[in-house]
Amino acid sequence: MIYFDNAASTPIEPEVIELVNKTMKEYFGNPSSPHEYGRRSKVLIENSRKSIANLLGVSSSEIIFTSGGTEANNHILWSCILDLKRYHFITSPIEHPSVLNTLDNISRHFDIKVTHVAIDSKGHIDTDHLNNILKTSPPSVVCLMHANSEIGNLLPVKKVNKICKNHNAIFFSDTVQTIGKFNINLNDSGFDLAIGSAHKFHGLKSTGFIYLSPDSKLKPLITGGAQENNMRAGTENVYGIAGMSKALEIAMRDVDKNQNHISQLKQKLIKLIKEEIPEIEFNGDVYEKGIHTIINLRLPASEKSEMLLANLDIEGIAVTSGSACSSGSNKPSHVITSLGVTPEKPSLRVSFSKYNKPGEVEKFVDTLKQIYF
Amino acid sequence: MIYFDNAASTPIEPEVIELVNKTMKEYFGNPSSPHEYGRRSKVLIENSRKSIANLLGVSSSEIIFTSGGTEANNHILWSCILDLKRYHFITSPIEHPSVLNTLDNISRHFDIKVTHVAIDSKGHIDTDHLNNILKTSPPSVVCLMHANSEIGNLLPVKKVNKICKNHNAIFFSDTVQTIGKFNINLNDSGFDLAIGSAHKFHGLKSTGFIYLSPDSKLKPLITGGAQENNMRAGTENVYGIAGMSKALEIAMRDVDKNQNHISQLKQKLIKLIKEEIPEIEFNGDVYEKGIHTIINLRLPASEKSEMLLANLDIEGIAVTSGSACSSGSNKPSHVITSLGVTPEKPSLRVSFSKYNKPGEVEKFVDTLKQIYF
Repeated sequence: MIYFDNAASTPIEPEVIELVNKTMKEYFGNPSSPHEYGRRSKVLIENSRKSIANLLGVSSSEIIFTSGGTEANNHILWSCILDLKRYHFITSPIEHPSVLNTLDNISRHFDIKVTHVAIDSKGHIDTDHLNNILKTSPPSVVCLMHANSEIGNLLPVKKVNKICKNHNAIFFSDTVQTIGKFNINLNDSGFDLAIGSAHKFHGLKSTGFIYLSPDSKLKPLITGGAQENNMRAGTENVYGIAGMSKALEIAMRDVDKNQNHISQLKQKLIKLIKEEIPEIEFNGDVYEKGIHTIINLRLPASEKSEMLLANLDIEGIAVTSGSACSSGSNKPSHVITSLGVTPEKPSLRVSFSKYNKPGEVEKFVDTLKQIYF
Repeated sequence: MIYFDNAASTPIEPEVIELVNKTMKEYFGNPSSPHEYGRRSKVLIENSRKSIANLLGVSSSEIIFTSGGTEANNHILWSCILDLKRYHFITSPIEHPSVLNTLDNISRHFDIKVTHVAIDSKGHIDTDHLNNILKTSPPSVVCLMHANSEIGNLLPVKKVNKICKNHNAIFFSDTVQTIGKFNINLNDSGFDLAIGSAHKFHGLKSTGFIYLSPDSKLKPLITGGAQENNMRAGTENVYGIAGMSKALEIAMRDVDKNQNHISQLKQKLIKLIKEEIPEIEFNGDVYEKGIHTIINLRLPASEKSEMLLANLDIEGIAVTSGSACSSGSNKPSHVITSLGVTPEKPSLRVSFSKYNKPGEVEKFVDTLKQIYF
């Protein structure tokens, strides 16, 4: 089996499985309980927070654990409205559903304005347009993801940060695809708000975090007990958090090696496709301003397109047509549609992890040629 | 070590640890992904949902997975306001912080009315008062927990259901302390909305569910992807959900045996206290209308009270002064205060699981006598 769907979820690191296993056995106390069992759990969580914060160049108080990226995005958007009283959001048509649908959902109840910044045919944000929008806006929130989860395009963070600063806008970036993949120092990255999701870097599902700068003034979405320094109520996911800390530690230890290895896989795939199936085009900017882990192929129209994913699956190759949160069908995703691609041309998102091998890339290209061309 | 804090969190079932371990290794696919790895995860989740639904006498479509009890309570309360347009909530002063603080939080943003139903000195809800409140109320939501997490009192569910039905009120009950402890058929229990939390019945933390009747018309709090039948976005906690299903299966298989065993522990504790430390009183209704797993002791005032929990901890006994979500200090909890207990008299919540043994009860009473009397 060839697993090329790492942007949806990654295999869990064996060391993480081992640690979670140990944690399930030995750390069952409620971290809020004032006794030995509780304290042990509390210490484990706080050490994990410290380690994650250190790896990302921030302080512990700037990391809030959540049940994953989607909750993190919801938390930030709701609190920007309810607590920060920001009612204008600038985002793009190619954001993740947990941003776009959440803004939609909130707009059913609150009078907010959502403006989409223009993108070019490669899927890059038009920063001049962003600047122009902000010129005539009240204090806004700019929600633009760091690496697009379907086409992999990277946001010009420094530039967006500068534009936001000039116009007193909050810069919130969904960074789930980049945390653990680059050497990111969140403190001087330029993001005011960012998020992480452990299962994107070989940790467990349903564990994530919000990075918030100390002056963010966000409040909790989920309330109740005083957990997470009164920022997120609910008994903490002790095992998931310990696992996330270990997963990020391993990811950052090997970040350069992994980036190099995965970049070579990506280059190999581009080369093989150009040589062997030149009919295939690419969605997004695969050459320069894209993340190494993601590549999105645009295939020519064919009566075979309807069975494409199923046939790849039968051949033991796991890829998708878009992000998992909007996939499950052969319909083109909102991201691909926004690039102006005609629906007859099917798209394939290939997303790598460090566990993939060059031979898998070769096998994939061979198989694709065989079943589709 | 003696662990008497099972109402805060329970040790994880060894079979659950084994299953979660296997799941982490073999089920890393994103359940929304349209390939073998994704489908395997999806099937595991749906089989877990079916099993949990069967054990609780409801259909699969009535169970929505969440990141735990606190999120479940938040989800229900927010959606009652935003989607069901109910603006009057009737609750009690002894509810969990995830209900009381969430209503408080929501009332910062929405014009809702919260009425507290009276309780008697034993902590029982005054059902006549509830009836009277509802007589003059617009269509309301009644939020009363099934078993109080600090004093263990059980709600007269049938009676409350009847009152709610008579007045067109939604009956929402926080059932985290009772799921897995009794033979509950949620379909004919009388609850319109109920919740569960796996770590209260030997499953993992950060995994829970909402039970909603088919006509509830609730909408999601956390939005994004189409997970959970469009009722809760975010990549599912595959391992936690599989573990919760196994934990509930074991809990319900042995429910009578466990209830009998734990009831005997409780009776033994009452008997020993009456015989050996008659100065101790009980908070709540320990004799008849209380759950078998929880007992709350009221100790006489003493200069030793400040060190009580710490000294028990040193002696290897894990108990708390209240629920974990409001504990960590020796201050009396809002529940105990609401019973009219003077703050000088410290309270101890003892909460049992099937893993506790009669000898631990004896040791606890001996230790308590020794360090406090």
